[in-house]
Amino acid sequence: MDQRINFITLATEDLDSARQFYVDGLGWSPLLDVPAEIIFFQIGPGLVLGLYEATKFAQDIDDTVTSAAKVGGLTLSYNVDSQEKVLAALDEAVKAGATLIKPGQHAAFGGFHGHFADPNGVVWEIAFNPGWSVDSTGLVSLQALPADSESV
Amino acid sequence: MDQRINFITLATEDLDSARQFYVDGLGWSPLLDVPAEIIFFQIGPGLVLGLYEATKFAQDIDDTVTSAAKVGGLTLSYNVDSQEKVLAALDEAVKAGATLIKPGQHAAFGGFHGHFADPNGVVWEIAFNPGWSVDSTGLVSLQALPADSESV
Repeated sequence: MDQRINFITLATEDLDSARQFYVDGLGWSPLLDVPAEIIFFQIGPGLVLGLYEATKFAQDIDDTVTSAAKVGGLTLSYNVDSQEKVLAALDEAVKAGATLIKPGQHAAFGGFHGHFADPNGVVWEIAFNPGWSVDSTGLVSLQALPADSESV
Repeated sequence: MDQRINFITLATEDLDSARQFYVDGLGWSPLLDVPAEIIFFQIGPGLVLGLYEATKFAQDIDDTVTSAAKVGGLTLSYNVDSQEKVLAALDEAVKAGATLIKPGQHAAFGGFHGHFADPNGVVWEIAFNPGWSVDSTGLVSLQALPADSESV
């Protein structure tokens, strides 16, 4: 197995509120939308986010399960290149129907970030990380701060 | 907010067993490894998987939380181009220390898939999907089967 992911699939209790948030609110275009089942969005090169009705999600992994699965222990991050853009993206998400859970603030990694939850409780981080860069081939560089550094 | 994700961060109870599985078992190279805190792997163009110690993960979102977060309601998928490669990848993962949770089998979407859990319970799907393709620019094409089609 190479270092690669093609789909991130999330158990989604309320597909209609998810569609309202991502499509109507943020203006995203689905790759495929099967009402009451699954909505796919391309969210990177060769990468798709699938929002899968929560009970069907659970049954796809174990067909003896009848209860809905719930997303937890996951953060999806969206990087921007300034503190102002963190605040603007958080604002845009809240206007589209998200719940702010951590207002924009200085981050332990030396940048600035904030978090919101989408209508189904999926946590997104909006981050400005001065140690993050991506070259023209998609290669990421991630510089750790010295262990004794303080948040800026 | 554009349709983009830069980090997928997962609450990870046992970072050492994660390192053993992904680095020693699958041969992945960390972008950054901060023992007892976080391990990052680049897993796509401009895309990083972060395995974040579970209590620190929870505190990063809400600093009043002291209990560990647990991953749930999430599947990461890895696409391959044949049924044989699904079986080979599941076999490789199990040999590296994963737990098989759904053996390779025909899938409702018209292809072939199987699932395993990594040592921290993160569920991966290995999938052969004949309706999936990615062009040279990274653009995904995802063809739905007719509603009345049977699994092949």
